[in-house]
Amino acid sequence: MPELRQDPASHDWIVIAAERAKRPDEYRREKKPEQRPAYVADCPFCRGNEDQTPPENFAFRDGEPNTPEWLVRVVPNKFPALTPSGDMTRRTETGFFRKTDGVGHHEIIIETPRHDLDLATIEPAQAERVVLAYRQRFHVLRQDPRVENIIIFRNHGKSAGTSIIHAHSQLIATSVVPNLIRDRLEAATNHYDDTGRCLLADILDKELEAGKRIVDENHTFVAFHPFAPRQPFETWIVPRKIRASFGNIDDDECRHFAHILQRTLYRLYIGLGDPDFNFVIHTAPVRDENQSYYAWHLQVLPRISTPAGFEIGSGMSINVTFPEETAAFMRNIDTPAPSAVRSLNHE
Amino acid sequence: MPELRQDPASHDWIVIAAERAKRPDEYRREKKPEQRPAYVADCPFCRGNEDQTPPENFAFRDGEPNTPEWLVRVVPNKFPALTPSGDMTRRTETGFFRKTDGVGHHEIIIETPRHDLDLATIEPAQAERVVLAYRQRFHVLRQDPRVENIIIFRNHGKSAGTSIIHAHSQLIATSVVPNLIRDRLEAATNHYDDTGRCLLADILDKELEAGKRIVDENHTFVAFHPFAPRQPFETWIVPRKIRASFGNIDDDECRHFAHILQRTLYRLYIGLGDPDFNFVIHTAPVRDENQSYYAWHLQVLPRISTPAGFEIGSGMSINVTFPEETAAFMRNIDTPAPSAVRSLNHE
Repeated sequence: MPELRQDPASHDWIVIAAERAKRPDEYRREKKPEQRPAYVADCPFCRGNEDQTPPENFAFRDGEPNTPEWLVRVVPNKFPALTPSGDMTRRTETGFFRKTDGVGHHEIIIETPRHDLDLATIEPAQAERVVLAYRQRFHVLRQDPRVENIIIFRNHGKSAGTSIIHAHSQLIATSVVPNLIRDRLEAATNHYDDTGRCLLADILDKELEAGKRIVDENHTFVAFHPFAPRQPFETWIVPRKIRASFGNIDDDECRHFAHILQRTLYRLYIGLGDPDFNFVIHTAPVRDENQSYYAWHLQVLPRISTPAGFEIGSGMSINVTFPEETAAFMRNIDTPAPSAVRSLNHE
Repeated sequence: MPELRQDPASHDWIVIAAERAKRPDEYRREKKPEQRPAYVADCPFCRGNEDQTPPENFAFRDGEPNTPEWLVRVVPNKFPALTPSGDMTRRTETGFFRKTDGVGHHEIIIETPRHDLDLATIEPAQAERVVLAYRQRFHVLRQDPRVENIIIFRNHGKSAGTSIIHAHSQLIATSVVPNLIRDRLEAATNHYDDTGRCLLADILDKELEAGKRIVDENHTFVAFHPFAPRQPFETWIVPRKIRASFGNIDDDECRHFAHILQRTLYRLYIGLGDPDFNFVIHTAPVRDENQSYYAWHLQVLPRISTPAGFEIGSGMSINVTFPEETAAFMRNIDTPAPSAVRSLNHE
């Protein structure tokens, strides 16, 4: 019997189509992940090829900007979706259709100088640098008075939209608040007005109470498969300390976030054989950073099934797995460096 | 300079990233569409294999149900997303997460008994039968008091989510109104309350006034590339006579709709070399069929680029083409059987 479940954050219904169900381990890719060399001459993100990108905006490095001794490097996208110059005035065509110049920022966070490593497998200190770089860019870009919203995201694998294989994340700062985010804020505001509580904090509490969809936790974050996932193995990482904006997290949160994110990606890597995925940091728009009703968090969406006409037309997803089963499967996968994580939990 | 454009129907912003722009003809697939045999023994949708599907719900045919002499055949999906039985009561988990049984209908409209034909290339009378079958199933299923919303859609090609290549469309009737559709209705209602006009009728008028994005028209329908397309070559087919529900179209509209749909799909087939696409008939929920603020229409979405983290996180699409250019390209493609279409326009 299929089940309809409602995502409390978006109010979207999803279908769990049990008739088509597979066991979690049936999603594991058979092919071995490709072995990559540590350096590729024409890869613009490899150490030594700094002249193949626009000049950097930020780096953790020794030496001068745009020289090889960096650990994490942030550069403008060479083919940006949005650009920092332009006229922000809203114009219309025939007095009806609204448009404006595509003003904003589009940056690449190169996560390691090495071509053969990935975010799931770099050393923990390096993953922390990646998160610190996210936050640093967030701090700088929210100072631009034209910026309304900042999206940090990562595309991993061809079906997730990657064209460059070298490990990197992206940041797009827009001069409009996306309609989708307005909708999420409205749902959160209504919940806050009705209950006096942050919607995501309530979701987290209820997930902890139910217990069966939790994958991982440390003293600062919880990773779980949500009640109404759009895709098999969709995973949310939610902070225990509610803040509307990712930009406001402290150093301790950066470290713990990096670790639980790595553990989550490592579980996907081992459990499913390096699946394609996207992740997105959901955060309040820049002018809503002090609201109590919203909480920043991260969503990982493996690209396991293909959204088709029904999903496009209805916004409803058809998922063929129960998150209770996928969470149990992921929970049972050993993660690397448990001692490092344990020491973090008790430091 | 990139451009931000707002879709007036959804209020979603899309980015037109001119820096990455290609000419329309650069999207044409080089590989020739596969030649298929007229009959395949293990294809459940081929004539003669009627026992490989569940018993039919409807057909245009001679002879008894489930025998070979049919032209269009509608069967329940063998692996349905939703099923007609179940308990519609809304329940909660831990008093918070909402769920219910997945009650609904999931049907397949087999568009031709022949394995080697497709909707773009079947004879016009056969395409009319397909549209009449859509409407017939709509009429029957909206009588089910549990049905709130009906989505008719088509997935063409692997990246559009097809698993069976034989030409078919699908229908899913749900016992909830999808949140996405509520959002569209709200935008349309607000426009109606502000202006006294149907939003889609205004969009159509403004597109006709602008002219440059029109691809095709007959005396009953207009096909155009919308001002703010999510993908290159996104095409809308909008009726000149506004009706909230697809279920209420008359025979004449069925015929003209079938023809402009075929011409649209044929243009994509020739112009882009049989691209993968989805189409969806957008229609008012069953209990809103008599509203004046909404208009049913069809959207074709070629699967040309891959939505990635930014699109998932923001709901904003990045499109690398201007619809003014893609529409001009499509307008200039010759369509088959112009005499048949001309006679329709003047009958």
